[in-house]
Amino acid sequence: MRALHWDGHNLRVQEQYPAPQPSDERALVRVRLAGVCSTDLQILKGYMDFQGIPGHEFVGEVHEGPAEWMGKRVVAEINFGCGRCEACERGMQRHCPTRQVMGILGADGSFAEYVAVPLANLHPVPDSVSDEAAVFTEPLSAAFEILEQIPVQPGIQTVVLGDGKLGLLCAFVLHQAGAAVTIVGRHDTKLALARKAGMRAVNLSDWQSQAADLVVEATGSPDGLQRALAAVRPRGTLVLKSTLAEDHTLSLAPLVINEVTVVGSRCGLFPPALAALAHNRIPVTALIEAAYPLAAGLQALNHAARRGTRKVLLRAASGID
Amino acid sequence: MRALHWDGHNLRVQEQYPAPQPSDERALVRVRLAGVCSTDLQILKGYMDFQGIPGHEFVGEVHEGPAEWMGKRVVAEINFGCGRCEACERGMQRHCPTRQVMGILGADGSFAEYVAVPLANLHPVPDSVSDEAAVFTEPLSAAFEILEQIPVQPGIQTVVLGDGKLGLLCAFVLHQAGAAVTIVGRHDTKLALARKAGMRAVNLSDWQSQAADLVVEATGSPDGLQRALAAVRPRGTLVLKSTLAEDHTLSLAPLVINEVTVVGSRCGLFPPALAALAHNRIPVTALIEAAYPLAAGLQALNHAARRGTRKVLLRAASGID
Repeated sequence: MRALHWDGHNLRVQEQYPAPQPSDERALVRVRLAGVCSTDLQILKGYMDFQGIPGHEFVGEVHEGPAEWMGKRVVAEINFGCGRCEACERGMQRHCPTRQVMGILGADGSFAEYVAVPLANLHPVPDSVSDEAAVFTEPLSAAFEILEQIPVQPGIQTVVLGDGKLGLLCAFVLHQAGAAVTIVGRHDTKLALARKAGMRAVNLSDWQSQAADLVVEATGSPDGLQRALAAVRPRGTLVLKSTLAEDHTLSLAPLVINEVTVVGSRCGLFPPALAALAHNRIPVTALIEAAYPLAAGLQALNHAARRGTRKVLLRAASGID
Repeated sequence: MRALHWDGHNLRVQEQYPAPQPSDERALVRVRLAGVCSTDLQILKGYMDFQGIPGHEFVGEVHEGPAEWMGKRVVAEINFGCGRCEACERGMQRHCPTRQVMGILGADGSFAEYVAVPLANLHPVPDSVSDEAAVFTEPLSAAFEILEQIPVQPGIQTVVLGDGKLGLLCAFVLHQAGAAVTIVGRHDTKLALARKAGMRAVNLSDWQSQAADLVVEATGSPDGLQRALAAVRPRGTLVLKSTLAEDHTLSLAPLVINEVTVVGSRCGLFPPALAALAHNRIPVTALIEAAYPLAAGLQALNHAARRGTRKVLLRAASGID
């Protein structure tokens, strides 16, 4: 099959990559559309020492698997837990110590024509959700994860730092949950999307740091954390969404002095995201910037790496070679 | 009066330092006993750019002030709020944006014969509490602050990193609150104090990092945070107690990936600490290593700065010069 492969040094389109094998526990899913995430770009900088096929955002259809799944349009949670450990038994497959993570850790991902996924991870996509919306299920669930982790009271003064893809999704989710959201970023076209949805949106160059109850750091930049710490009020909460390959150098004294609570936040459960998409509550398709065929994967990732780019998608062509 | 003065470069005993003036809002307290804290040693490295008389742990007696306070043995909360801002009105004087902090920020401290303290900050010391125990009220309240910030369920697997003064107090408080505490440090004599109280105590060189529900970082060392992050289980809680002058360089990716909650924790309210001392629930006096007269303040701080030292006290001599 055709796949985009990262060997730790080079990213290449391979035409004869062996297709993954389905098993009793894993279905073979034909990828229709995959999304490029900032984490994929971090992987190309060495994050997680991953080698293989990147990509963890996708929508596809079941090509081989149990009869009840065959042909179904699906999305899939990306953490493949062992299913037997204490974390998995508590429903925390996302934190299974021996988990694989699609396209990030030990499992090939979705920048390919086919991907193998545990049956337990599959979710059917409601008919009312287009492929172009469904491909946002994974990043949208990461935004909904914030609501699973912390209480978000109506009207809570909230700053989202970063108008990248994840920052915008976090802002949309917090706004629809009733938070009073200000999104701060560098890209007026992206800020306009938030403004249109009723949020306050401020260019970083015009922004006066305020003492917010809740700050979400989604800049994907090593500077973001220091700025986020300065924007949260004493006893406030800072949600960290950026995963970076680089180390941070910073003083943590303000965190202690102001008794800030910092909450690391990663993947969320899919059902809340799918429900929001089914009810058209989050205008995700406005985030799409471009779609490339899989064969033009290198251009797609180069495009995605440009500053200020919205979501870049990959369309996989069909057929196992 | 005699006072230990830090001018930003040198620490000196001054014999003719002007005594502070009491006012309608501030009592003049004659210091009986003051404690040296690691924060004082950080101040001598530049922390907070403080200049003046350091010291924020003390017990004394009211020398000038309203009749109802005269002669009373007292301890005092160290954050002097403005009393008028939103934080102060919500009872958060500890987070007043224009606060002074005794011996740390804008107000002279307790390494002197007298100190001026807002009446609102004074707490009478119960007769059953000796001076040698009462001088621990401030650091003990900082340990109790953890219980104010996070739920500590009975039996919660807890690691306290650091067997310094604050680490030991945090371990004692969490142990008496029902947590299953392991304290990890470098000093067998100090670890023995925790073991005697019924805790598990492990030398760092023998310690196998475990996946704890709750980790308290109280090492006072820039390495401590990385070690603490490695010791907390996914979705666990890390309480940061160390305030350091130095910057940290570290990867925060594990915090995001493991969805750890980091809680900065500083000063606590005095009543829980005074109640614990009155009921003899925390063996604080076992932490005393030495007491020096104020005139030997430089030796006292040098002693306190030696690795592995327990609490060093300063006894102020009487008399306004």
